[in-house]
Amino acid sequence: MDLIEKLNWRYGTKKMTGQTVPAEKIDRILEAIRLSASSAGLQPYKVFVVSNHLLKGRIHEQACQQPQVVEGSHFLVFAAKTNIDEAYIDDYMQTIADVREIPLDSLQPFSDSIKGGFLSREAAANEAWAARQAYIGLGFGLVAAAAEGVDSCAMEGFNPEQMDEILGLKDKGLHSVVVMALGYRDAGKDFLAGAKKVRQSREALFVELA
Amino acid sequence: MDLIEKLNWRYGTKKMTGQTVPAEKIDRILEAIRLSASSAGLQPYKVFVVSNHLLKGRIHEQACQQPQVVEGSHFLVFAAKTNIDEAYIDDYMQTIADVREIPLDSLQPFSDSIKGGFLSREAAANEAWAARQAYIGLGFGLVAAAAEGVDSCAMEGFNPEQMDEILGLKDKGLHSVVVMALGYRDAGKDFLAGAKKVRQSREALFVELA
Repeated sequence: MDLIEKLNWRYGTKKMTGQTVPAEKIDRILEAIRLSASSAGLQPYKVFVVSNHLLKGRIHEQACQQPQVVEGSHFLVFAAKTNIDEAYIDDYMQTIADVREIPLDSLQPFSDSIKGGFLSREAAANEAWAARQAYIGLGFGLVAAAAEGVDSCAMEGFNPEQMDEILGLKDKGLHSVVVMALGYRDAGKDFLAGAKKVRQSREALFVELA
Repeated sequence: MDLIEKLNWRYGTKKMTGQTVPAEKIDRILEAIRLSASSAGLQPYKVFVVSNHLLKGRIHEQACQQPQVVEGSHFLVFAAKTNIDEAYIDDYMQTIADVREIPLDSLQPFSDSIKGGFLSREAAANEAWAARQAYIGLGFGLVAAAAEGVDSCAMEGFNPEQMDEILGLKDKGLHSVVVMALGYRDAGKDFLAGAKKVRQSREALFVELA
């Protein structure tokens, strides 16, 4: 697989066919998101994976009027943690100790360092930070979808309050930050399917200091 | 290439060998970043690609004390636009018209819609938005590095004011939001090289609504 070829193939798909993406492809896309990097490894978000037709219809009607919500096969909502508290960091340390079979005590300096950063900051700063981590996951998901030959569209154009309400995010200490539809392009109806990709030139985007 | 295998291989590398990453691999990683998705395609950031030893040394000394800055081969600074103004959107529309060979006039509705959103928002909201787009690019870059068998480490632990000063970002209407070292792991010195990857379980990270 040539990744650059796949990334040239992908584009933010506006019209999809409704065809279902096979479970094994969805599994690999989700696994890429699960393996994505995050600051200190904290993964401060959850991903809601919606394939239920009624629920997609409700989201389309009330929270995101873009057609990919219902024409796509799976609709992913990246929901960032609204706050980073001591309990969350403690749970994470316990997970590290369990996975690596090391004493919890040995993680004390790491734990102190993380707590020192997060617990002294304003909630808004942690919330913005958590959203940015979710965007790394989004990046991993978009690349993985392209690698699988699955079309995708990341979207910010939705009503976050309505989305949070529909998925019951507030009670879970979460809020929606970005969404992503997975499916197959309807090339006949999507004028972008045949349009040349527009990107900054190599010279415009990068400043090489060699 | 199995992407999931590559993503299991990657980790946030803390100690690197100093070995240079071949130019063609750097080229492909940068190309993946260039092809990454962004909201409305606006790519509101630049990426500084630092391979100059003196400059890496200065960054290490003054802005980011982590060893990967100097032990890595290339050091990338994602610098987001501080403001989104009318001229930037106009330039983007001209680029679309040029690339797709369509009349500029035909993009008026798209241009109006984007301007309506960005020019009415507070600068801080646009700044936060631009940073998140850079994080999508970061995600693409991390996956592409793994695909190339190149180690990487994304870092938020740096002094942004110092980084901006060293790279002269303020005068360019940019500010550093996240950085990324590219190089090769020093497995003997990096205890994380052999450590099990810690991630939320599939059940913990995803909420499947089928």
